[in-house]
Amino acid sequence: MPTIASKPSGAKRGRPGHDQDSVLSIAVQVFNKHGYDATSMGTLADNLGISKSAIYHHVPSKGDLLDKALDEALIPLEALGEDPRATMGTAAERLEFVLRSTIRVLVERQPYVTLLLRLRGNTEIERRALERRRAVDRRLADLVVGAQQEGSLRADIDPRTTTRLMFGTINSLVEWYRPDGPSTPQQVEDNAIAMMLDGLRA
Amino acid sequence: MPTIASKPSGAKRGRPGHDQDSVLSIAVQVFNKHGYDATSMGTLADNLGISKSAIYHHVPSKGDLLDKALDEALIPLEALGEDPRATMGTAAERLEFVLRSTIRVLVERQPYVTLLLRLRGNTEIERRALERRRAVDRRLADLVVGAQQEGSLRADIDPRTTTRLMFGTINSLVEWYRPDGPSTPQQVEDNAIAMMLDGLRA
Repeated sequence: MPTIASKPSGAKRGRPGHDQDSVLSIAVQVFNKHGYDATSMGTLADNLGISKSAIYHHVPSKGDLLDKALDEALIPLEALGEDPRATMGTAAERLEFVLRSTIRVLVERQPYVTLLLRLRGNTEIERRALERRRAVDRRLADLVVGAQQEGSLRADIDPRTTTRLMFGTINSLVEWYRPDGPSTPQQVEDNAIAMMLDGLRA
Repeated sequence: MPTIASKPSGAKRGRPGHDQDSVLSIAVQVFNKHGYDATSMGTLADNLGISKSAIYHHVPSKGDLLDKALDEALIPLEALGEDPRATMGTAAERLEFVLRSTIRVLVERQPYVTLLLRLRGNTEIERRALERRRAVDRRLADLVVGAQQEGSLRADIDPRTTTRLMFGTINSLVEWYRPDGPSTPQQVEDNAIAMMLDGLRA
């Protein structure tokens, strides 16, 4: 299953050793910096500290890395939909659970979600990932509709517009949240929920 | 002052004539589609329906077009801060006015604001525009602090995080709002204000 060979530290003089996680972590940074399309195998090799001729020994293809990196964002986003708190209880309770869990995934997997949100859909791998993202998004949209129907969300909002505004709020986190900043993940999560569900007015 | 020459319709067989507004409107679409850095004068000429050798007669430089296009977003954003409703009254009233007016500018000047929000800051023109954008953003940040201090915004939110979440909500409009979609600008504005200031819960 692991297609990126584990490399013992020091195997290449003065160059860091890489396991699959560190290759993925570096690759996603490079993709986010230069854009996936604009990143060549040569650029990846440079950033991994290995030679251009050695990169195919470590990385089967750029697409393989992209696929694995997107799984790092999509698998936890898909998993939270299977949690009993996302499937049982009132729609309002489920909506709050899904919003909070989504924020947590965005904060914990920030570079991987950034990559997902910037996808253009130019390749088959990208299109498959975008289809999975749309399925995740639809779940939130359905909860907004459900919560409005059960009377727990106000009647004067449009569910479609509201879902898009919520995603705007939440997805912006990947652009500005800094793990070493003054706010903890819990504070950011509580702040976003306070604004969206209860409003900022005292 | 106008540096892009007005061209009478039909001056070039089968090609549309352009005035300064139509050149700007086409250029901003091209910049948003390909990215400003990746857009060549040749690409602009193709999209304007004029020859590569003629483009410098109509457009002094790519930077000149960028500067003018960014003004289309920045001038109205700066102007709303001079409105009496942004400078008088309680901080909460001024905050709501600025939020509503900002949403209106984003919807009315969507392609120009899109260009502004995607700037990378690679050139002096871009850096000047980003500095003007930061000044506009600071005004909203100050209003959030002021409204919290006067007791009209809840005490348990962080002004800095809240300001960023508000910009996430509002700025997302340029990515998804469609003038020919089911919602009017007024509905989108009311929906966003309802969510941010009063919350979605019934």
